Amino acid sequence: MRVGVLTGGGDCPGLNAVIRAVVRKGVQEYGWSVTGFRDGWRGVVDGDAVPLDVPAVRGILPRGGTVLGSSRTDPFAVPDGVRRLKENLAKQRSDALVVIGGRGTLGIAARLHTEHGVPCVGVPKTIDNDLPATDWTFGFDTAVGIATEAIDRLHTTADSHRRVLVVEVMGRHTGWIALHAGLAGGANVILVPEQRFDLDQVCAWVASRFEAAYAPILVVAEGARPSDGAPVPGSVGEWLAGEIARRTGQEARTTVLGHVQRGGSPSAFDRWLATRFGLHAVDAVRDRAYGTTVALRGTDVVRVPLAAATDRLKTVDPALYAEAGVFFG
Amino acid sequence: MRVGVLTGGGDCPGLNAVIRAVVRKGVQEYGWSVTGFRDGWRGVVDGDAVPLDVPAVRGILPRGGTVLGSSRTDPFAVPDGVRRLKENLAKQRSDALVVIGGRGTLGIAARLHTEHGVPCVGVPKTIDNDLPATDWTFGFDTAVGIATEAIDRLHTTADSHRRVLVVEVMGRHTGWIALHAGLAGGANVILVPEQRFDLDQVCAWVASRFEAAYAPILVVAEGARPSDGAPVPGSVGEWLAGEIARRTGQEARTTVLGHVQRGGSPSAFDRWLATRFGLHAVDAVRDRAYGTTVALRGTDVVRVPLAAATDRLKTVDPALYAEAGVFFG
Amino acid sequence: MRVGVLTGGGDCPGLNAVIRAVVRKGVQEYGWSVTGFRDGWRGVVDGDAVPLDVPAVRGILPRGGTVLGSSRTDPFAVPDGVRRLKENLAKQRSDALVVIGGRGTLGIAARLHTEHGVPCVGVPKTIDNDLPATDWTFGFDTAVGIATEAIDRLHTTADSHRRVLVVEVMGRHTGWIALHAGLAGGANVILVPEQRFDLDQVCAWVASRFEAAYAPILVVAEGARPSDGAPVPGSVGEWLAGEIARRTGQEARTTVLGHVQRGGSPSAFDRWLATRFGLHAVDAVRDRAYGTTVALRGTDVVRVPLAAATDRLKTVDPALYAEAGVFFG
Amino acid sequence: MRVGVLTGGGDCPGLNAVIRAVVRKGVQEYGWSVTGFRDGWRGVVDGDAVPLDVPAVRGILPRGGTVLGSSRTDPFAVPDGVRRLKENLAKQRSDALVVIGGRGTLGIAARLHTEHGVPCVGVPKTIDNDLPATDWTFGFDTAVGIATEAIDRLHTTADSHRRVLVVEVMGRHTGWIALHAGLAGGANVILVPEQRFDLDQVCAWVASRFEAAYAPILVVAEGARPSDGAPVPGSVGEWLAGEIARRTGQEARTTVLGHVQRGGSPSAFDRWLATRFGLHAVDAVRDRAYGTTVALRGTDVVRVPLAAATDRLKTVDPALYAEAGVFFG
Repeated sequence: MRVGVLTGGGDCPGLNAVIRAVVRKGVQEYGWSVTGFRDGWRGVVDGDAVPLDVPAVRGILPRGGTVLGSSRTDPFAVPDGVRRLKENLAKQRSDALVVIGGRGTLGIAARLHTEHGVPCVGVPKTIDNDLPATDWTFGFDTAVGIATEAIDRLHTTADSHRRVLVVEVMGRHTGWIALHAGLAGGANVILVPEQRFDLDQVCAWVASRFEAAYAPILVVAEGARPSDGAPVPGSVGEWLAGEIARRTGQEARTTVLGHVQRGGSPSAFDRWLATRFGLHAVDAVRDRAYGTTVALRGTDVVRVPLAAATDRLKTVDPALYAEAGVFFG
Repeated sequence: MRVGVLTGGGDCPGLNAVIRAVVRKGVQEYGWSVTGFRDGWRGVVDGDAVPLDVPAVRGILPRGGTVLGSSRTDPFAVPDGVRRLKENLAKQRSDALVVIGGRGTLGIAARLHTEHGVPCVGVPKTIDNDLPATDWTFGFDTAVGIATEAIDRLHTTADSHRRVLVVEVMGRHTGWIALHAGLAGGANVILVPEQRFDLDQVCAWVASRFEAAYAPILVVAEGARPSDGAPVPGSVGEWLAGEIARRTGQEARTTVLGHVQRGGSPSAFDRWLATRFGLHAVDAVRDRAYGTTVALRGTDVVRVPLAAATDRLKTVDPALYAEAGVFFG
Repeated sequence: MRVGVLTGGGDCPGLNAVIRAVVRKGVQEYGWSVTGFRDGWRGVVDGDAVPLDVPAVRGILPRGGTVLGSSRTDPFAVPDGVRRLKENLAKQRSDALVVIGGRGTLGIAARLHTEHGVPCVGVPKTIDNDLPATDWTFGFDTAVGIATEAIDRLHTTADSHRRVLVVEVMGRHTGWIALHAGLAGGANVILVPEQRFDLDQVCAWVASRFEAAYAPILVVAEGARPSDGAPVPGSVGEWLAGEIARRTGQEARTTVLGHVQRGGSPSAFDRWLATRFGLHAVDAVRDRAYGTTVALRGTDVVRVPLAAATDRLKTVDPALYAEAGVFFG
Repeated sequence: MRVGVLTGGGDCPGLNAVIRAVVRKGVQEYGWSVTGFRDGWRGVVDGDAVPLDVPAVRGILPRGGTVLGSSRTDPFAVPDGVRRLKENLAKQRSDALVVIGGRGTLGIAARLHTEHGVPCVGVPKTIDNDLPATDWTFGFDTAVGIATEAIDRLHTTADSHRRVLVVEVMGRHTGWIALHAGLAGGANVILVPEQRFDLDQVCAWVASRFEAAYAPILVVAEGARPSDGAPVPGSVGEWLAGEIARRTGQEARTTVLGHVQRGGSPSAFDRWLATRFGLHAVDAVRDRAYGTTVALRGTDVVRVPLAAATDRLKTVDPALYAEAGVFFG
């Protein structure tokens, strides 16, 4: 059997662990040949492929990023894209594709499979943890760990200086990183995109924290917005710090973690999850379970339809967010 | 309501996160008073208690160990233990106990509840991840992370020196830490207590690794044993390194991580899990769901009977272990 | 003998290690009694003191911040400050003061010693490493380590996405953190306050990096400024990213580390240095070497006049900065 | 100019940072061509060389180990070794050699230079920090950091369980790692090879620590030996734990860090030092300062005769060791 692999979308710790597992199991256990397409769908459209044998994936398990490169190329948006893609798959004699990506990349796989019969198996990937098909996505645990460590460090300053400390974390549409890092780091306020925040309430929490003689730490997802719906210029963290300073008269400082959260070596959890996803994607190909994606349910890796992984965003449940509220203020 | 809390058994990162969550939710949200008993069941038997208010749990979230202390005291094994325990609960006017512990501690809670009507709610704890009731126990992710980092560092030496590198990790009865850290670290051999190992097979893996020009890294759980069933003197890691050196003529070195794996600040995942366990244990007390323990199923915290958490060991499934076999040698 | 200790200025990893060493050596080896004054000079002016015995400093070695608190109170700026300070020292029967602080705090100690005969021994402290008397100050190594880890993580993204990545680090007046973290992290451009930067040159480096097919990482000290001398609104990192994006048409993202750099557990190097500073400050008191501060020269801890530690800023030597230039672009 | 580079002896974090700096400065600034010899002196003897241009060293700065490989080959011990070495240097038209290594490797460079006129410049390397010519060697700070983190984690257990905790660290002949990690980690006993230890004294420290209600943590260098001079079978850490348990009746556990201490990514300090060593070695070659090695004195990189770097071991000064004694027991 001949199998192609590609990684699409933003980079995410654990991508290389998936690639390695696909190659190790496909090549060593099933005797397949495995080909990597460069830069996501672009590599299939352009016929840019590289053979992947066992030595080619040696040592990549702990490395962030993807040895195959990535892009946001959409074959449906490229002139003649789907035809060229199918030609290149035929030229490579690829029997199946393992597609590692987020909603965009997997959505293309779903469409290629349904509309054009391209035999795809998906592996869900996003540091944002916002795919409904799976309990967790790899990359998320690493991002939460980095944000938590930053909050840990701010507690030192919060204990000895009278300052409002704001940390802006990733999360344009969902607040999973903010919620988990905020809980794990012991933040006093957590703001998520799913629920608009009331600046008066935020300032009340800040004030109540100062009354308890400690400086408040606020974690805000980059997509969180105030309840008045007014646009926020630039970084929401910087904006929030400015507003709080203006309203409370307290000095306020911001940390904007940015891309630091999506880089570097994946956590042990993410490597374990990514590795198992890779192994099970290979079995899904062996079983011709095309049109599905692997997913974690409890401690089991299962298969679900590609569509189920991409049809909507998994947002933070209001009940979960409310659970965290006991730590606010 | 008046609620007592205790932590029993070996220390484990995340215990303080549970205590803090119980106090924050119990005191702030429900207006209860919370009392900590010192050193596990010993504190209840001896009437050694300390009031826990919100300031008392400030700053303990990221700290390893337990501010309440721990012990292996069993009230059933202490003269008059159960009677004294019940007297002290009456004296403290405790309406319920939140019992944080592993199989031993929770087993006592189960018996006290069933045989003596003591109103207990359990919180499962073990770095070994060997409790069947829950997908994961807190402390495990931290231990796996520490062991994985050690393996990561050994790869550097494995790349440049011709040496067999053996890492002994925790796990007397189950191989969860060995399996997860071995997978996450990219070990070449993983040996677990659930399956006796054949020294000839191990040496064959070592040899095949050297043929690929790299030095082998072996992860061995402290409870793993050779197939001949002969007793292993001292550390199994040191013994294994000696045997491999003797049989293959290769230099072999051992790292014994020991207690380093159970100390230090909990990982973000473990803090999240421990915090949610604490919050849900409080709700179980509120609902008078005595005789149950909280547990993680997927991403939900649920309640299961205490007996179900303690009646057997959750061992590594042979299929899971076999899954890892593709990376051996 | 009776000795007072205080910590002044911004918080800095290693302060607690100094306090612990002063107490351990003063109390255990010399049999002194040691008193801590709270919140820097404020505690001496207000007579706010706490006895420090060996149990009081247990476990503080690895903790960031300062158990004594800090402030920027200047007794010379407080009505009747110096008189009240001297009265409180007399009331506490303090024979000497160990003053842990940066240029401001130590400058006050120098003046109190010279003008008012207050027996002070200094311990230099600043994460900025800008004190001329000593090869290194504690706190600096920790800050550089945190910034370096952030840059490490950005390399992952730089390898797979076409983006300009800007990291703003601490350093209002000196570029030590930027220089060391930039060198250690493999940054492509390092901008320091000591040398105004030319935006055209910066954009040229960015372009040359893209030509080599990799994304550029720029480290900029918060006090770095463009050569035209025009004021920079808000964060210089955000401003620089905006300017580069505008001029080159490339997407640019910023990480602003902020207070994360001065919090958390000190590095092993900083703990070693801070501990030795504490031990040697005690010996300086024993020798009545008032008006001096301890300092590191090579691997030796020496004594230098307080004035020498505070009379000017130790800036980044142009030759050192030029040395780093080979890695630019 | 044509310059060869080699790395010899045990691996050590920072080797790749030196190689990269030599290439970046030699090739980019001076226009030289740089060649790497594989596996230390073996590569020169066997003529096993690889061209090193700027792309070849991309991304290696943060990686442990050495991309050139290493060995303990001694050309003086190989039949015809020196003749073959000189022939290969001539064949490669190498004008000079940058030799990165410890006492063994640099000693060979000194002899080759003195006796055979081979133009060598040295770069001192050892995680043991035992070279007299330089204030610090790179690799040492990383090793100390790893050992300190392990001790940090053990404090958690020491706080909650009554156990003697022994950590064995590297150091066959010198106790630098033990001393620095012991000080930084807050160990209760530090044992070094430079000073034989008295088991009765060690047990007295252990007992006094238990009286203060905390469990003792002992750091022992692998080369530390008891005062009776009797041979120690196997790991000195395991042996010491056994002896203490036997004599005091306390449970004792051992952590043997082993090769974990010499692997993985170098600390920021080690990368800075290694990078500067590489840059200055290039300048030493430019100046034809053969027969010297670069070295750190204070914050300056200087040149000293190769012989001075290798003629004796830099052992822990008894005064320094005594300084640490205030923390024992």
